[in-house]
Amino acid sequence: MTSTLTVTRLELPPSPEARLAAYALALGDDALILGQRLSEWIGHTPVLEEDIAIANTALDLIGRAKLWLELAGSLGEEKRSADELAFLRDAWDFRNLLLVELPNGDYGRTLLREFLFDAFEVERLAALARSPEPRLAEIAAKAEREARYHVARTGDLVIRLGDGTEESHARMQNALEDLWPYVGEMFLTDELDAALSGAGLAPDPAALRPAWERRVGEVLEAATLTAPSSTFTHRGGRRGVHTEHLGHLLAEMQFLQRAYPGGTW
Amino acid sequence: MTSTLTVTRLELPPSPEARLAAYALALGDDALILGQRLSEWIGHTPVLEEDIAIANTALDLIGRAKLWLELAGSLGEEKRSADELAFLRDAWDFRNLLLVELPNGDYGRTLLREFLFDAFEVERLAALARSPEPRLAEIAAKAEREARYHVARTGDLVIRLGDGTEESHARMQNALEDLWPYVGEMFLTDELDAALSGAGLAPDPAALRPAWERRVGEVLEAATLTAPSSTFTHRGGRRGVHTEHLGHLLAEMQFLQRAYPGGTW
Repeated sequence: MTSTLTVTRLELPPSPEARLAAYALALGDDALILGQRLSEWIGHTPVLEEDIAIANTALDLIGRAKLWLELAGSLGEEKRSADELAFLRDAWDFRNLLLVELPNGDYGRTLLREFLFDAFEVERLAALARSPEPRLAEIAAKAEREARYHVARTGDLVIRLGDGTEESHARMQNALEDLWPYVGEMFLTDELDAALSGAGLAPDPAALRPAWERRVGEVLEAATLTAPSSTFTHRGGRRGVHTEHLGHLLAEMQFLQRAYPGGTW
Repeated sequence: MTSTLTVTRLELPPSPEARLAAYALALGDDALILGQRLSEWIGHTPVLEEDIAIANTALDLIGRAKLWLELAGSLGEEKRSADELAFLRDAWDFRNLLLVELPNGDYGRTLLREFLFDAFEVERLAALARSPEPRLAEIAAKAEREARYHVARTGDLVIRLGDGTEESHARMQNALEDLWPYVGEMFLTDELDAALSGAGLAPDPAALRPAWERRVGEVLEAATLTAPSSTFTHRGGRRGVHTEHLGHLLAEMQFLQRAYPGGTW
């Protein structure tokens, strides 16, 4: 990996370009890893319509990841392609939130996790679309439209499953308890966030929380689900400290590229 | 399964509606099974661009399958949903060509198989789009546009891989030898085909072969690949006599629906 990108694990990148690269990398990794998780369902949902919907969502996320990773790889001295960044990094060089790397669980839990992320992503992208840094604003504006659709779709399904049968309600409440300790990481402000938001280029994640809480609160209420009161949060994804689940996901995703470097087989 | 649909294994369905149902079922099964095979690659190709392309193709095919299966399930006395037809039939009730159920093999072989099918599908759909039976013509017209794109894309990649490195050429030639004994089944005319083409509603498959041979011949020549001279063909898919590979594919695809009937988890 280039020093531009790996240095974020240890310290704030010194130059504006390197900071932009590190920031785009984190945005790309969130989308890539969630897209990969969702793609695990393709061909395995019990409803053709849902198979098509989740495949479309996974495609949106992988397309979004490609744009962010292209941006990240184009900055700094050593250029990297989006494919190199996706397929040739090790887990400790990934910057995604822990929330998106967790295993899917059942379909309801998969949708709930996506909703909790979507509700954050839509606010982050809306803020980035107004950034004076055109390279951020351009990708964010395109992605925001998709994210608005995703959050509406997953919010709707969370309500239907939460306020569904006794069984579906219980599963969703369990999923919410399990996922809740991972939501706080989305709103942590690290040095990179502070530098970029201080320069007016990107939002302070903490500032996105009220809008997220409003949206999530409304959906959970309609879904008859209760958010846990604990504010504890796991953290580490942004510094490359991941759960063991990311390693398994990458082993699967990167197998071909690693076995046959540069190959297209 | 309804007698409307299973009877095709044994004899020609007696009524025009039942024949239409059986025909739509076969069209749907070809698209469903190939779409399922392609979806196995999602998240596993070594190039993000290719991941997106193959996911889009799989989506087109599963969407196409849904339309044909909806049509098949809407006819006859016992109505079935597309989901019931996709997830609750056993292998012997599937009517797809053996070619589309074969395992993917490497990525080149996956693309070659898709190309050999696409080159047939595009001719079949173009003929069906001109059918005086509006229920066939409407779906075919929509699907034909996608299929034209697919055949152009896969033809292009077959050329690049066949006329690529020594290794890629050898793999493609091997794949062609293995797949060739399955292409003939596309052009067999059974009693159902004869009845529908006799009534002017659908093409006689045998009549599609010259256009297929022209297109495939051009691509193979550009790819420096040599079509085997043997005219032997495996057959059975249209009568529900499948390879063991279909059983494994269905076990994977149908697991959730069978384990939790009607569930959305």
